[in-house]
Amino acid sequence: METGSVLLDLFILFVVAKVAAELFEHFHQPAVVGELLAGLVVGPHVLGFVGTDQVLDVVAELGVIILLFTVGLETSVSDLRRVGRSATMVALLGVALPFSIGVGAMVALGYEDQEALFVAAAMVATSVGVTARVLRDLRAVRLTSSRVVLGAAVVDDILAILILAVVAGLATGDLSSFELALVFGEISVFLGVAIVAGPRLVQRIARIGQNVPWIPRSAFTIAVGLTLGLAALSESIGLAAIIGAFLAGLIFDFRKEEVANQVQPVSEFLVPFFFAVTGSRLDPAVFADPQILWLAALITVLAALTKFVGGYAGSRSLGRATALAVGVGMVPRGEVGLIVASLGLGLGVISRDLFGVVVAMAVVTTLATPPVLAVFVKREKEEARRQRSG
Amino acid sequence: METGSVLLDLFILFVVAKVAAELFEHFHQPAVVGELLAGLVVGPHVLGFVGTDQVLDVVAELGVIILLFTVGLETSVSDLRRVGRSATMVALLGVALPFSIGVGAMVALGYEDQEALFVAAAMVATSVGVTARVLRDLRAVRLTSSRVVLGAAVVDDILAILILAVVAGLATGDLSSFELALVFGEISVFLGVAIVAGPRLVQRIARIGQNVPWIPRSAFTIAVGLTLGLAALSESIGLAAIIGAFLAGLIFDFRKEEVANQVQPVSEFLVPFFFAVTGSRLDPAVFADPQILWLAALITVLAALTKFVGGYAGSRSLGRATALAVGVGMVPRGEVGLIVASLGLGLGVISRDLFGVVVAMAVVTTLATPPVLAVFVKREKEEARRQRSG
Repeated sequence: METGSVLLDLFILFVVAKVAAELFEHFHQPAVVGELLAGLVVGPHVLGFVGTDQVLDVVAELGVIILLFTVGLETSVSDLRRVGRSATMVALLGVALPFSIGVGAMVALGYEDQEALFVAAAMVATSVGVTARVLRDLRAVRLTSSRVVLGAAVVDDILAILILAVVAGLATGDLSSFELALVFGEISVFLGVAIVAGPRLVQRIARIGQNVPWIPRSAFTIAVGLTLGLAALSESIGLAAIIGAFLAGLIFDFRKEEVANQVQPVSEFLVPFFFAVTGSRLDPAVFADPQILWLAALITVLAALTKFVGGYAGSRSLGRATALAVGVGMVPRGEVGLIVASLGLGLGVISRDLFGVVVAMAVVTTLATPPVLAVFVKREKEEARRQRSG
Repeated sequence: METGSVLLDLFILFVVAKVAAELFEHFHQPAVVGELLAGLVVGPHVLGFVGTDQVLDVVAELGVIILLFTVGLETSVSDLRRVGRSATMVALLGVALPFSIGVGAMVALGYEDQEALFVAAAMVATSVGVTARVLRDLRAVRLTSSRVVLGAAVVDDILAILILAVVAGLATGDLSSFELALVFGEISVFLGVAIVAGPRLVQRIARIGQNVPWIPRSAFTIAVGLTLGLAALSESIGLAAIIGAFLAGLIFDFRKEEVANQVQPVSEFLVPFFFAVTGSRLDPAVFADPQILWLAALITVLAALTKFVGGYAGSRSLGRATALAVGVGMVPRGEVGLIVASLGLGLGVISRDLFGVVVAMAVVTTLATPPVLAVFVKREKEEARRQRSG
């Protein structure tokens, strides 16, 4: 029975993640790092207690979807609008810098154009899951930097998808500007409708539901349906599913407190799977070849630095403390980078080694961010407190 | 992207299941029937909105595991002990009757011994998920009949596994009485340790956890870990995973109310997937061949009648109203029957047609039980009220 071993995997991942999270919190370290490391240790590349079943990815995906929904729930559309300009600047710089410097470095190292384009494209998209988790654990979701990072993550993801469309189009040779416009149009309509019409639509459905027999009366059920729906829709037009989940939380404005309380145990149950599974994907063996090790180190440092500089420069007008937190918060790369790399591998454009480099970059930026981010977010909080009292 | 379509499937299943459940409740019908039918309608064999991805089975499995945990949480070990004798009788008769009559009917119809044994073995195991759901929806988990059915389900599952071991051993020709004793020994040790030592062990771990840094302090987290662990263990020794989940709920006795409140939204989220996915598995096309249709009808009626008679006779001493509810509550067949049938198909012992017959029997008994059970449980409740007041 397949299911038997999957249940065992889920059990192992859940227990080690929770135990590690508890230990890390005890020593005042971010719980999410504990969960990532726990996954790494029991994963297929180290102890091998847990396999690589595709099913694990789906449970992990449900976890990160729930996480982004809760983060969206704690954010408001007007909060995001207030930081709109900074968030857009952060996203633009945070995409342009890694991509251009990534391409430059790869070409300078003697790699082919196609390889350079794919690796650089994988360096573009911030994975907001890790940052969102750290912010939530620190109860800092409504801090200025948090709102900038969350807003920038939406724009960032759109830009990443457009770059991917172009790069993949160049590789397969069948890119039409019409298709590109179509992708862009779809995304615009999706975001526009969700943000503009979403909140009122949700409220109306929820209120009607109290009287119409076929609409569930439970606010929580409506919230879950909306989250799964927008996540699926988001993914179907090429955005990350978590962007849809974040939007669902953002526009859900019906018995918010009740829903937030009910979603909490669901996230306590499912979220650790995302981080443990992500950790389990890192194969330390890629570092055995010194050349690959150096390339991975270089790409990782470039990816972190360029994102940090982009985030910092884009939000500098909001004050130094906020800009530092934004810069660090944008560093983690994740699913989207891995998707780009898988696509390059599938098209035969990049090698297994380069794929390993991208995976290492994604995992290392993810692992390294939380402790640093925690420091800067705390500083920003103190700064904000000082300004209010001063 | 595989994950994209799976998210869409999950969204569709969730929404149609919830809408159907709401409608059925509005018309005073069991919500679970709505969820089953909704799954059937959008499933691959009717409208085809939803595929047959193995991932759906795992999410469904998580749902039924959570369901049985909550049911276990509402039951107590002493409750079960009080009905121990009746539950054992119900299980013994409810296994012996379907198996013997199943073999007899199949042989009389001219099928080979091996085929007869496999189909009969698939008729044995009650799937307590559906009944548990109906009982919970009616707030009847602590009713006498509920306790008998839940206790009988544990014994029933053990007997089914032993029968499966024998039948599969006969088919592959490598059955040793030593192996059989081993299976029986494993099961006994598992149940004995869980029921006798479990409650104290859980309490001790949970209490220690408040002081030891590496044990999660959240009672809910400990409950989830225990549930996944016992479910995986249960499956690894050949029992259904839901038996382990039920035991986990049964022995969990630490901040029970808090945990019950927290598990509620998790079950609101995950449980519908089990019923919708189960419904989606029925292929109405198997009924196209009249011979198969008749066989399926016969086997279904025999499966329902023999279980009902076994349950009724085994619990007659508890009064007529209780015995009727027990008899009906034991009727649904599910996962275990399907596992037996898949095994038979895999070994080449039974044909695709006979496999279809077993699936039809499982789904029809599952679909037909809730409305009938609801009637009898309400009668038993009234009877109990009359006795108390009389």
